[in-house]
Amino acid sequence: MKNIVVINPTDKLRKFSDLWSPKIIAEINDAYVKLAKLKGEYVWHKHDNEDEMFLIIRGVLKIELRDKVLELQPGELVVIPKGVEHRPVADAEVCVILIEPKSTLSTGDAEDTGDKKSTHGEWI
Amino acid sequence: MKNIVVINPTDKLRKFSDLWSPKIIAEINDAYVKLAKLKGEYVWHKHDNEDEMFLIIRGVLKIELRDKVLELQPGELVVIPKGVEHRPVADAEVCVILIEPKSTLSTGDAEDTGDKKSTHGEWI
Repeated sequence: MKNIVVINPTDKLRKFSDLWSPKIIAEINDAYVKLAKLKGEYVWHKHDNEDEMFLIIRGVLKIELRDKVLELQPGELVVIPKGVEHRPVADAEVCVILIEPKSTLSTGDAEDTGDKKSTHGEWI
Repeated sequence: MKNIVVINPTDKLRKFSDLWSPKIIAEINDAYVKLAKLKGEYVWHKHDNEDEMFLIIRGVLKIELRDKVLELQPGELVVIPKGVEHRPVADAEVCVILIEPKSTLSTGDAEDTGDKKSTHGEWI
């Protein structure tokens, strides 16, 4: 049987420093729970078939949509529905929990851009 | 298009006081994000087909398994895999985020027991 352990996201955050590179910390059914550190502007993208949840651990994350800008404080969450174009922007470093289907690529329908590589994430 | 709004779980927690009665605050693909207030001992149960995630907002939650007891502090999370018998126990009130498939019943394979009613949860 799978080993069942308590996961401390704050501890896991000490294990990496690369930005825009989600790390997998758990799986629930067909979804992964990921951690990411964000700073600066990401690329505009959408996930055609997958809703994506952002839950803020530290920092303030802006998520630009085509018609408005969301601002998320620590402890807050949002679900970006499938097909909705969005661009995360972090003026200072932000630490987030992401929950999304295992099939989700970080850049969605967008190409790699500079240091924003398209990835499913790796386990830490 | 669905209205995309930032969700503040702490604000939502002020909207209810009943224990062991999960409230739905968001949906991601085929899963719901729920909030619950727990105090006391729940019933032993399992979810035959659904993994279930617990993420602690406030308080300390024990989750008894048949072979050990997990203790979760605020900010920590655990995934209880499908088929694994578990019993949440909260010595003092605990506030948690639950993420589980829309099909999940709170008591899993167990019957209603006193004030622990089997529910899919209602939206708040």
